[in-house]
Amino acid sequence: MSLIQVINPNTSLAMTETIGAAARAVAAPGTEILAVCPSHGVPSIEGHFDEAIAAIGVLEQVKRGKEQGVSGHIIACFGDPGLLAARELASGPVIGIAEAAMHTATLVATRFSIVTTLPRTLVIARHLLQQYGFTHHCAALHAIDLPVLALEDGSGVAQEKVRQRCIQAKREDGSGAIVLGCGGMATLAQDLTKELGLPVIDGVSAAVKMVESLVALGFGTSKHGDLDYPLEKPLSGAFQHLN
Amino acid sequence: MSLIQVINPNTSLAMTETIGAAARAVAAPGTEILAVCPSHGVPSIEGHFDEAIAAIGVLEQVKRGKEQGVSGHIIACFGDPGLLAARELASGPVIGIAEAAMHTATLVATRFSIVTTLPRTLVIARHLLQQYGFTHHCAALHAIDLPVLALEDGSGVAQEKVRQRCIQAKREDGSGAIVLGCGGMATLAQDLTKELGLPVIDGVSAAVKMVESLVALGFGTSKHGDLDYPLEKPLSGAFQHLN
Amino acid sequence: MSLIQVINPNTSLAMTETIGAAARAVAAPGTEILAVCPSHGVPSIEGHFDEAIAAIGVLEQVKRGKEQGVSGHIIACFGDPGLLAARELASGPVIGIAEAAMHTATLVATRFSIVTTLPRTLVIARHLLQQYGFTHHCAALHAIDLPVLALEDGSGVAQEKVRQRCIQAKREDGSGAIVLGCGGMATLAQDLTKELGLPVIDGVSAAVKMVESLVALGFGTSKHGDLDYPLEKPLSGAFQHLN
Amino acid sequence: MSLIQVINPNTSLAMTETIGAAARAVAAPGTEILAVCPSHGVPSIEGHFDEAIAAIGVLEQVKRGKEQGVSGHIIACFGDPGLLAARELASGPVIGIAEAAMHTATLVATRFSIVTTLPRTLVIARHLLQQYGFTHHCAALHAIDLPVLALEDGSGVAQEKVRQRCIQAKREDGSGAIVLGCGGMATLAQDLTKELGLPVIDGVSAAVKMVESLVALGFGTSKHGDLDYPLEKPLSGAFQHLN
Amino acid sequence: MSLIQVINPNTSLAMTETIGAAARAVAAPGTEILAVCPSHGVPSIEGHFDEAIAAIGVLEQVKRGKEQGVSGHIIACFGDPGLLAARELASGPVIGIAEAAMHTATLVATRFSIVTTLPRTLVIARHLLQQYGFTHHCAALHAIDLPVLALEDGSGVAQEKVRQRCIQAKREDGSGAIVLGCGGMATLAQDLTKELGLPVIDGVSAAVKMVESLVALGFGTSKHGDLDYPLEKPLSGAFQHLN
Amino acid sequence: MSLIQVINPNTSLAMTETIGAAARAVAAPGTEILAVCPSHGVPSIEGHFDEAIAAIGVLEQVKRGKEQGVSGHIIACFGDPGLLAARELASGPVIGIAEAAMHTATLVATRFSIVTTLPRTLVIARHLLQQYGFTHHCAALHAIDLPVLALEDGSGVAQEKVRQRCIQAKREDGSGAIVLGCGGMATLAQDLTKELGLPVIDGVSAAVKMVESLVALGFGTSKHGDLDYPLEKPLSGAFQHLN
Repeated sequence: MSLIQVINPNTSLAMTETIGAAARAVAAPGTEILAVCPSHGVPSIEGHFDEAIAAIGVLEQVKRGKEQGVSGHIIACFGDPGLLAARELASGPVIGIAEAAMHTATLVATRFSIVTTLPRTLVIARHLLQQYGFTHHCAALHAIDLPVLALEDGSGVAQEKVRQRCIQAKREDGSGAIVLGCGGMATLAQDLTKELGLPVIDGVSAAVKMVESLVALGFGTSKHGDLDYPLEKPLSGAFQHLN
Repeated sequence: MSLIQVINPNTSLAMTETIGAAARAVAAPGTEILAVCPSHGVPSIEGHFDEAIAAIGVLEQVKRGKEQGVSGHIIACFGDPGLLAARELASGPVIGIAEAAMHTATLVATRFSIVTTLPRTLVIARHLLQQYGFTHHCAALHAIDLPVLALEDGSGVAQEKVRQRCIQAKREDGSGAIVLGCGGMATLAQDLTKELGLPVIDGVSAAVKMVESLVALGFGTSKHGDLDYPLEKPLSGAFQHLN
Repeated sequence: MSLIQVINPNTSLAMTETIGAAARAVAAPGTEILAVCPSHGVPSIEGHFDEAIAAIGVLEQVKRGKEQGVSGHIIACFGDPGLLAARELASGPVIGIAEAAMHTATLVATRFSIVTTLPRTLVIARHLLQQYGFTHHCAALHAIDLPVLALEDGSGVAQEKVRQRCIQAKREDGSGAIVLGCGGMATLAQDLTKELGLPVIDGVSAAVKMVESLVALGFGTSKHGDLDYPLEKPLSGAFQHLN
Repeated sequence: MSLIQVINPNTSLAMTETIGAAARAVAAPGTEILAVCPSHGVPSIEGHFDEAIAAIGVLEQVKRGKEQGVSGHIIACFGDPGLLAARELASGPVIGIAEAAMHTATLVATRFSIVTTLPRTLVIARHLLQQYGFTHHCAALHAIDLPVLALEDGSGVAQEKVRQRCIQAKREDGSGAIVLGCGGMATLAQDLTKELGLPVIDGVSAAVKMVESLVALGFGTSKHGDLDYPLEKPLSGAFQHLN
Repeated sequence: MSLIQVINPNTSLAMTETIGAAARAVAAPGTEILAVCPSHGVPSIEGHFDEAIAAIGVLEQVKRGKEQGVSGHIIACFGDPGLLAARELASGPVIGIAEAAMHTATLVATRFSIVTTLPRTLVIARHLLQQYGFTHHCAALHAIDLPVLALEDGSGVAQEKVRQRCIQAKREDGSGAIVLGCGGMATLAQDLTKELGLPVIDGVSAAVKMVESLVALGFGTSKHGDLDYPLEKPLSGAFQHLN
Repeated sequence: MSLIQVINPNTSLAMTETIGAAARAVAAPGTEILAVCPSHGVPSIEGHFDEAIAAIGVLEQVKRGKEQGVSGHIIACFGDPGLLAARELASGPVIGIAEAAMHTATLVATRFSIVTTLPRTLVIARHLLQQYGFTHHCAALHAIDLPVLALEDGSGVAQEKVRQRCIQAKREDGSGAIVLGCGGMATLAQDLTKELGLPVIDGVSAAVKMVESLVALGFGTSKHGDLDYPLEKPLSGAFQHLN
């Protein structure tokens, strides 16, 4: 039995459920999904400031997850906040959903498009493309210009905007796949894949399979070199619980 | 029940067995491994000429695999010969073992080293790093300067050379992971991982998990755009069977 | 007297003639052009699958060319299929027409545009730009969205579409030169150069001058390192004739 | 009168003094330096985990600095932790000391070397080089293999190791300048510049001049686009004070 | 008292005054601006040929500036003609205005746009972006399609065109800052910054602050390595005065 | 009958003869070589300052060459000084010898090494590699640490040093070809090619074949776009003769 911790870095319980459901939908028989979010922090993540705060919540959850004996961790926000810090802290694998979706896209298409929420988050996606090596694999980035939580308002407006942008991306970008750029879009991927006739990739489900794979291969995060455990030092104040 | 076709692109039956064993060792309960190799072609692959010939064998096997109803295909030679051609032909996912190992390495370490066979194959690895986006994730490339089939001569000399180079790579390169650069090294990964205390990654097993993952996610190769099925045209002569 | 082998990698005799004529039109007094194509394979090349098959035909012809004592070889398909494999096999120089046209364009302009046939072949051009180092020298890629053999149907429709796209590229791309992205467009270059008033470059003629130049300089393909002759090994089955 | 806030992201008061002194030594007549550090967090920063925690302290200080009416902010740790998040929060300019030192180095030399503390921090420097565009301007990275706080132990051992590595870098790297890779090395730059006869650059002093310059030019952080103020949202728990 | 030499590389006295005024407007209390231009050369710089000629004038002025004891030099043409040659000749810092504006833009925004004069100069800006490392920081390049001296014809037409393009760039490019691509636009920056509500950056003023900063930090151009003084050799003919 | 102007950008008559001889040795029957150098300028070129001066001599010679009806121009100094300026001025093709040698090397090998004179010129070669797109095709750069004119002192010491470095480069770099990085080394290429058994490439002879090729193809420098003739403007003083 393998336990995978899916961390929604924001404090939205609705989105945590959306993400947990997407994870469970693809989990292998032997995998249990533990969907969590920080008890404090930001209700949604739409910029570097939000990400910096969310990263602390991610680290707290990784620490808790280790104590609970999880096999691996997923950071379920498209900016992959705190990814390398979490890798230092963890012994098992840690996967970000942007990372997971981008990697997956390059395996089924020569180039992909990204559809995300607010334009101000595009810079984060661009930096991740550069860090992961996929700048030249991304044909175009699109923003629907709605905030993250519009995906949880029950109106379906944001979902329809995502759909329209995916259709536009398919028509105009010359891409073979589309990456959904927000954890809150996780449950849209399957239907869009069918409707559009090309892979529309959600990072949450992709990340679940990546963690399962790494665990099956016997790989955790490498502790040789720059992702070794953080050097022990007395953390003070609000961070004592991270000691 | 899912059937994964592992194609050794060379004609060495011994190496096909090595590769098949490595694949089976990590296959999920519901996965059956079909390890095959072309009936004609090159006995080992150590350059672009060998790769060009092997690519035909790969395509023949992919065609057969499709007829047999396999879920996905693995190209088990570190140069990933014929990868994009095979993706056109296939409906399911196709993964190369260099691709699989390199992707996996970037998930568990910030940089990796490669240990391969003959120096003349290094250029192939460099081109793949560039194509996949991982040029800056590779800290160093090493060649043991022995031909591929030395790994199948039973003496263990090549295996020991691989081990020595991995130890050297760990000490000198500042990498967090090592990628084994030949399908024939597949069975070494697990022991070296333990001995060296860092992920030593074999692409065969990594590719099995990737294909399983893509299948579970419902993704085949995208048929929208440049990886669509080959345009129908009358293949002549020795290639008629590929029609 | 120098003999240059111009290999049309597809089996279209009409296109082989087109290509041969373009080559002869620029050949130096002392150069004889031997325009050939494989007797079996694909009638046109519009994707990676077609390229993989065509590469075998290229290698067969290179082998024959060597036996006939040719001084150098040209691969007259814009994807340069089998280029590095052919370089291993050859002792003389081997030039692809995409390579030739792209190199030439950078000598007469700071940036160039490419006009090719089907959109699905653009990915091949992009990979070549990356391999040759010219990604940043290419301002735009255009596809007329007609198959290769439309250039041989006698209607002139494809030719007119090429012309329109060249005019558009001149107006919009800010490029100083245009590269024609198909061997079948070879005979259009001279007229378009005159009409448009900027270099419209056909790779076949450019490649002829490159091979002549390398031969005059005394350079064949380097046999030191990774382009050395293929290691001798028993090729089996349909590939025995390549031994 | 212009007030510049120099934020030491770790909690070491000794290092805060070192950094403050370096800043004051180059401040223009009209500039007052406010050297601060978080009251809680990590005593030194040697990895991504430490950086994630330190980023919160940086944001708290930026918020305080704004309330105190400072003209600009400096993040005085070589990893520039929280830089883009701080830019969102700030209205004035925010400069990281790695950024400042790297920019400065490219103005006085064609290539530079970096000398830093622990090898595990090199990956952070590499990522910054990539983000800032200076990967090809950096000839070599060196680590003295001593922790950050060794620079504050009064023994002078770490300082001598820095000096030896600078001498080695000058001799071997073909660089025209050396960048000191830790805020705690700030006071070494001037003497090493004299002894070695080439610019040895401390980011703290370089950043002071950059902030002064931006203020004099009338530029704060652009609030058009992706560095606009964080979207207002209720921060909860330990982050309420950042509202 | 510090003397900064601002070299207008063309022979236009009107533009030299424009540039000198922009420099003086931001100079620190202790800085005196010496605005000069060559007595012979080209009246405006709109291509590589013009730049090659202007570079000689730049070198002559740098030599004179050294004799006059200036602390640093600014090359006030957006192509930064003769920058590395001037750095060899100078002992103090030398800054180009394209360099200054581009560096400054990356400190206040994640991406910037450039607005310049003639389309034929865009290639120069692109090469500088590549040399300085900022290719990926530039979102778009715009040319108003008017010659440089249109900025000095008193009609205001060129100035209005610049303004319109800046407005368009703000609306369309997703950039956080705009770089003005001509020394003759120097006096427009302040008003446009106010009107548009984002940093519109003039390289002349930015360069003044950079030179002041480097001087305050005690850095001249590194004389270790490839920017060392030119090797002494007898210059002949029209270049004797550069001995 | 075709006349090619080979411009030695320095004023050394001995080197002009060396270069002229190398050019004539490979010129086609119908080609006449006109080897020239400026009457004033620098006796050798070993840095950016020297290059800036030499560029004027290059432009003067291109102007003269045009008046003499030459078909094309070669800039026979490894830094390719004034290349783009000369292209603006010329109607025929203009080729630099660094450009010629680097292009040629990529046609016969996957990677090459460069052997040049003084270490301070390496930065020039690096910038050219970047401009031409060949950064990743160059495995290593070597400097023999002797000035350019040592190649003309008759002692043979510099020539022997070049030879030793080529032997070292072959052994250590994993390159398939070597590029000689100085016009004064032109006559060494043929013997070294024979002795070392791999292409040792001199840019002068390579450039002759490139100009011949472009002329035969009917291509001059593109006058559409940014290499169009310089805008007419009154050049003053020492530059009047360039009007």
